[in-house]
Amino acid sequence: MADGWAHRVPLRVRYSETDQLGTFYNSRALEWFEVGRTETLRAAGIPYAAMERRGIFLPLVEARLFYQGRARYDDLLEVQTRVALDGKASLRFDMEIVHQSDRAPVTSGYTVHAILNADGRPTRCPDWLRQVLLTASS
Amino acid sequence: MADGWAHRVPLRVRYSETDQLGTFYNSRALEWFEVGRTETLRAAGIPYAAMERRGIFLPLVEARLFYQGRARYDDLLEVQTRVALDGKASLRFDMEIVHQSDRAPVTSGYTVHAILNADGRPTRCPDWLRQVLLTASS
Amino acid sequence: MADGWAHRVPLRVRYSETDQLGTFYNSRALEWFEVGRTETLRAAGIPYAAMERRGIFLPLVEARLFYQGRARYDDLLEVQTRVALDGKASLRFDMEIVHQSDRAPVTSGYTVHAILNADGRPTRCPDWLRQVLLTASS
Amino acid sequence: MADGWAHRVPLRVRYSETDQLGTFYNSRALEWFEVGRTETLRAAGIPYAAMERRGIFLPLVEARLFYQGRARYDDLLEVQTRVALDGKASLRFDMEIVHQSDRAPVTSGYTVHAILNADGRPTRCPDWLRQVLLTASS
Repeated sequence: MADGWAHRVPLRVRYSETDQLGTFYNSRALEWFEVGRTETLRAAGIPYAAMERRGIFLPLVEARLFYQGRARYDDLLEVQTRVALDGKASLRFDMEIVHQSDRAPVTSGYTVHAILNADGRPTRCPDWLRQVLLTASS
Repeated sequence: MADGWAHRVPLRVRYSETDQLGTFYNSRALEWFEVGRTETLRAAGIPYAAMERRGIFLPLVEARLFYQGRARYDDLLEVQTRVALDGKASLRFDMEIVHQSDRAPVTSGYTVHAILNADGRPTRCPDWLRQVLLTASS
Repeated sequence: MADGWAHRVPLRVRYSETDQLGTFYNSRALEWFEVGRTETLRAAGIPYAAMERRGIFLPLVEARLFYQGRARYDDLLEVQTRVALDGKASLRFDMEIVHQSDRAPVTSGYTVHAILNADGRPTRCPDWLRQVLLTASS
Repeated sequence: MADGWAHRVPLRVRYSETDQLGTFYNSRALEWFEVGRTETLRAAGIPYAAMERRGIFLPLVEARLFYQGRARYDDLLEVQTRVALDGKASLRFDMEIVHQSDRAPVTSGYTVHAILNADGRPTRCPDWLRQVLLTASS
């Protein structure tokens, strides 16, 4: 996309995701980041489930989150994702969650993922995955 | 709807909802039931968030679940909901979660909810909510 | 135990387990039931993790829950568990969660579990598991 | 404590916290960090629930996590916490989660929290909280 986001996915805040302060509980943002990754890879042509079946796993090795604004039950959010290679054997997903209505920021951050083969060993990014990333970021 | 379901909502299984057996963790079904209730009430014209702002709360008092089949990460499910008054001061949501592709059953069951006012007291179903239920079940 | 509970385990309500009504979110009770099962089997001499390594799996097939009272962040609860064979190839855990201080009820109910072997087939309760159940209920 | 950790709390991995890779799902680490904060403040003499009743709230504004090793269902972990003032109106909790048996690292990181009053406004750290922090870090 022109503004650099590979993908945008709408997401409703569930009641189960709130806490007693009336906003979403902080760990849910990592679960929403995962929804963004999943839909970005699907849009680029290779769902993550298919990727695991091909013997490529992308476990999280680092996450950073900045909590910028509230989001309440039933609010309609948008999860924006950008993905890129980060060195030879890892991927980085940049994330920004905003309110769909007024673009007010909710949480931004990033996650870094190792690229592992079926034996759990770090592996260079395979060509087909490199192609997926190009598609995702174009 | 002709088959008696008030509402159907699609739902993707998240990675965060799986467990080490490779299927969804059992408590997630209650969270998916909640998604079904939320979308059923929205479709009937009164989102649950608006209902709480009007001073009507529907806390769960009973839940029953039958686990019928597996659902894996990224599977596309459908949450089917039917709602009805259950006595004077409670509601019952009947639920069935199936795979969208082949209708294979995942989880069925129901939840029963007290109808409480803003003071936390049981209250008769208000007329506007009765109207919502009629809309939802027609 | 004299009162029929096989095991009691203390449990603190986490902030992540609350919702915007200020009490615990309903699906957490199923997660607390699981804590009760885990500690009951450990106390009876065979942790569930060891059971899975022996090729016995106990997936949930039915759950029923009655929500009886509130529990807030940081409240100290007690999960009480009783376990018994339920037919030839299933187990039933009866559960009651109360406040530790005044025994005020929070949630009661039960879960029914199939007894499956490593191939995912229903299997008769092995003798060693039958022995565990006797220990657990004595 | 001599090694700089304000508090250590044991924690069992729940089945509900695992995912299909057989280890804990990444967002659970933020929930475990919360358990560490809760027990650290309790040990220092003022439970967080009491703090909220005094009109002091500590919402998360930033979190960083490094995933270092696996942890499976029923593994016994230890959550280590260190807390300090971070500027005039925020707190920082440094965290390290390890296996209790062999101290193998699982997740480390930190969370930064605004200090807000009951109106949701940033406020200087009150003296009693400053005292709690001194107790926690001695």
